[in-house]
Amino acid sequence: MTQNLAVDSARLWSSIMETAQFGATPKGGINRLALSADDAKVRAWFKTAVEAVGCTVSIDAMGSMFARRPGRNNALPPIAIGSHLDTQPTGGKFDGVIGVLAGLEILRRLHEAGIETEAPIEVINWTNEEGARYAPAMLASGVFAGVFSLDYGHSRADRDGIRFDTAMDGIGARGDAPLGHPLSAHFELHIEQGPILEEEGCTIGVVSGVQSIRWYEGTMIGLDGHAGATPMRLRKDALLGVARVIEATNRVARAHAPDGLGTVGLIENRPNSRNVVPGEVFFTIDLRHPDDATLAQMDVALRDAVAEIAEADGLALTLEETWTAPAVHFNPDCRARIEAAAETFGYKTRAIVSGAGHDSAYINRVAPTAMIFVPCAGGLSHNEAESATEADVTAGANVLLHAVLATDRALAETA
Amino acid sequence: MTQNLAVDSARLWSSIMETAQFGATPKGGINRLALSADDAKVRAWFKTAVEAVGCTVSIDAMGSMFARRPGRNNALPPIAIGSHLDTQPTGGKFDGVIGVLAGLEILRRLHEAGIETEAPIEVINWTNEEGARYAPAMLASGVFAGVFSLDYGHSRADRDGIRFDTAMDGIGARGDAPLGHPLSAHFELHIEQGPILEEEGCTIGVVSGVQSIRWYEGTMIGLDGHAGATPMRLRKDALLGVARVIEATNRVARAHAPDGLGTVGLIENRPNSRNVVPGEVFFTIDLRHPDDATLAQMDVALRDAVAEIAEADGLALTLEETWTAPAVHFNPDCRARIEAAAETFGYKTRAIVSGAGHDSAYINRVAPTAMIFVPCAGGLSHNEAESATEADVTAGANVLLHAVLATDRALAETA
Repeated sequence: MTQNLAVDSARLWSSIMETAQFGATPKGGINRLALSADDAKVRAWFKTAVEAVGCTVSIDAMGSMFARRPGRNNALPPIAIGSHLDTQPTGGKFDGVIGVLAGLEILRRLHEAGIETEAPIEVINWTNEEGARYAPAMLASGVFAGVFSLDYGHSRADRDGIRFDTAMDGIGARGDAPLGHPLSAHFELHIEQGPILEEEGCTIGVVSGVQSIRWYEGTMIGLDGHAGATPMRLRKDALLGVARVIEATNRVARAHAPDGLGTVGLIENRPNSRNVVPGEVFFTIDLRHPDDATLAQMDVALRDAVAEIAEADGLALTLEETWTAPAVHFNPDCRARIEAAAETFGYKTRAIVSGAGHDSAYINRVAPTAMIFVPCAGGLSHNEAESATEADVTAGANVLLHAVLATDRALAETA
Repeated sequence: MTQNLAVDSARLWSSIMETAQFGATPKGGINRLALSADDAKVRAWFKTAVEAVGCTVSIDAMGSMFARRPGRNNALPPIAIGSHLDTQPTGGKFDGVIGVLAGLEILRRLHEAGIETEAPIEVINWTNEEGARYAPAMLASGVFAGVFSLDYGHSRADRDGIRFDTAMDGIGARGDAPLGHPLSAHFELHIEQGPILEEEGCTIGVVSGVQSIRWYEGTMIGLDGHAGATPMRLRKDALLGVARVIEATNRVARAHAPDGLGTVGLIENRPNSRNVVPGEVFFTIDLRHPDDATLAQMDVALRDAVAEIAEADGLALTLEETWTAPAVHFNPDCRARIEAAAETFGYKTRAIVSGAGHDSAYINRVAPTAMIFVPCAGGLSHNEAESATEADVTAGANVLLHAVLATDRALAETA
C-alpha cells in the first residue's frame, strides 16, 4: 500500500514559499536568525501545521521542537526527520528549511493516506543550527547528543550580549521535554551546498558522512623593503612565501584527489602598499578529507611543504592548528535505505561526503543517522540567491519518506 | 690648494642633528611636511646659515630656495648642489636633508678656506620633494624643469583641501626669482634607501640614473565556493591564480637579473573568509629596470604569463598599466667626476641605479646632473628609524665637494 506513496510536490513547494515570508529579504532570501521574532513566527506556523495532522509538539530545554505522530507501538523510540528553520542573516530559502518542511509534508501525506506506522514518527526543528546568532553552530542538536552541556548551550551570547536562554524565553520557545530522548533513527534532507550533484546530473546524494576538518592560522614574516631599491636577491618577501603556501595547499589537496580539499581563504598582507615588498602576511588554511588518517597525512605533507618554503626563502613562520573536527560516518543501514528508496523512484544517485557540518553529524553519535542531499544551483548557499528546483526537493522528500518507511518496516520485523 | 680640502665632519653632523629638532618625533625621526610650520623653521635656519658665509638667498614662485655663493665669473650659470629639507610624516633624519646640509657645509668650508670658484655655487632646497603633503612628489623641481606648469604646482591641494600656493604664502615662502634659471650642473647627495651599498661594503654609490617603472592594477575573478563542499577540480580560486601571478612576477624579475625588479605589494582578497574559496582578488604589480627596452621585454613576459595563468585556471582577468616612468640616465661627465673624487679619497664605490625618484631626475632634463648615494642601515628609509653613519655622510659630502670643484675647473678651462 505504501509502495507507490509520494509526497504532494505542489504542497511541499507552497509550504517552502509560504514560510519564506518569515524574515523575507528584498533579494529573495531569508534573514531568520535563531530565536528572533521571525523565528518565533515560523515556529508557531510549524506547530499549527503539524497539530492540524494529528501530531503533538514537545519542546526541550534548548527550544528544539519535536512533532510526534504516534505509531502502533509507541514504546519504540521514534524515527526522526530533523533539520532546522533558522537561517543565516543573508540566507536562502532552502538550507535547513526543506529538511523540516519535507518532514511536515510526510506527516501530511501519511495522515491523508491513513497510514499507521509501527514506530512513532518525529519531525524535529533543531534550534540554532546555523551558528550565525549563537556560536558554535548545531548548538541544540549538540546539547541533545551530549556534545555540549545544557549550561554551555544556555550561556552562549550573541553579539549584543543577549544569552541564548534569555532570547529563548523572550519568544517563549523553552520547553520541558526531557533532553536527549532515544531515537530509532534520524534522517535529514538538505541541499548539497556544493556543485557536485548538479555538475554530474545527479538528483540524490547519499551522504556517507561529514569529512574531517583541520583549520590553521599562519604568519609569514620577512622584511619590508622599498620595491624600487631592494634587489631581488636581498628580498625577504613574505607575500611571495605565502603565494608558495597557497600553491602547496592546492598541491597537497590534489595529491589526495578526488576527496582532499585545501583552501587558503583569508589573507592579510602588511604593509599592503604597492611599492613596498611585503614584510608580514597572516593567512589561514582549511584542510579537509573524509578519512581521518588521510587528513593526518595531508597535515604532515602540508607542514613539511610550508616549513620548506619558509626556510628556502629565509622567512620566519608560525603555523598553528586552531581547530580539528574528526570525520563522521553515517549509519550503513540508513544509507542503504536511502539508496534503495532512490532506486525505486529511478533517481540518479551518487555517494557524497558532506563538506559542511549538520545537525545529523551530532545526532549520529546517539542514533543511527543518515542524510540525503539534493542539488542547489551552482552549489551556492549561505546566500540570498540560493536556489533549488521543485522537482529536486520533491525527489529528496520522496526518498526521505521511503527511507523512513523502510526503517519502520525493519523495526516492525525485529519488534 | 683645493686638492686636500675636506668638509668638517663634526660640523656637518651637528647641523644634521640641530635641524632634526624642527619636527622631531618621539621615535627619533622627523615629521616636517612641506610648507608646514616646522618647514618654515628649517627654511629660516638655512637662510641664516648660508647668509653667515656670504651667500644671498633667492626664492622662486614654488618656494625653492637658492643660496648663491658668487664666483669669479658670475656670467656662468651656477654649479648647483640640491636636495630637500621636507620629510615624510614619519620620516628619518637623513633622506633629503644630508643633500642640502652637505651643500651648506661645502659653502662653509669654501668660505673659511677663502676659496674663490670660477662659477657661482648654488645650494638648493627644493620644495615638496616627498609628495607626502602635495602629490605628486618632486613638485617644485618638476616645475623648475618644465615638467609641470606653475599653475599646476600652485593648484595642488593637500588632504585638508589647502592649496600649495595658500600654504606657501601662509609661511611666507613664495619668492620672485625667475623660474628655471640655467644651471651649469646639478649634484645631489642622498642616502641609498636600499641595502646594496651596505651589503657590499661600499661607501659611495655613483648613481647612473633612475630606473624605468611600470605600475599595474589587476583583478582576478573566479567563483566563490564553500571550502568544504567545492571539489578541487570544480574550483575557480582567484587567490590561487594571484598566487601564481606573484610567482610569475618574481620569475620575470629574476629572469632579468641583477637589475630587474618585480613586486606585488598590495592585495585585496574577497570575500576573505577562512572557509570560502576566494572569488575575486585585486592586486598591484610594480615592475622596474634601469633600461627602458628591457622593461618593455619584462612587460611582455609578465602579460603573457599572467594571461596564461588566468586562462589555465578558468579565471577572468583584467590587467591595466596605470603608470609608466621612463628611465633617467645621468650625465656621464658628472658621474665621472663623482667617481674620480671618490677615488681620490680611496672610498670604495660602485655604480648604482636609483630605485626611487629624486629631484635630480627632473633637473637632469635641463642641466648636466648626477647623484651620490651613501649607505643607510638595512636600506631602511621613509621610517623614523632611518639611520646613516657620520663617516659615510662625511664621505658623501667630500665626494660632492670635489665633484663640484672638478666641474668648476672644467668650466674655467672652457671659459
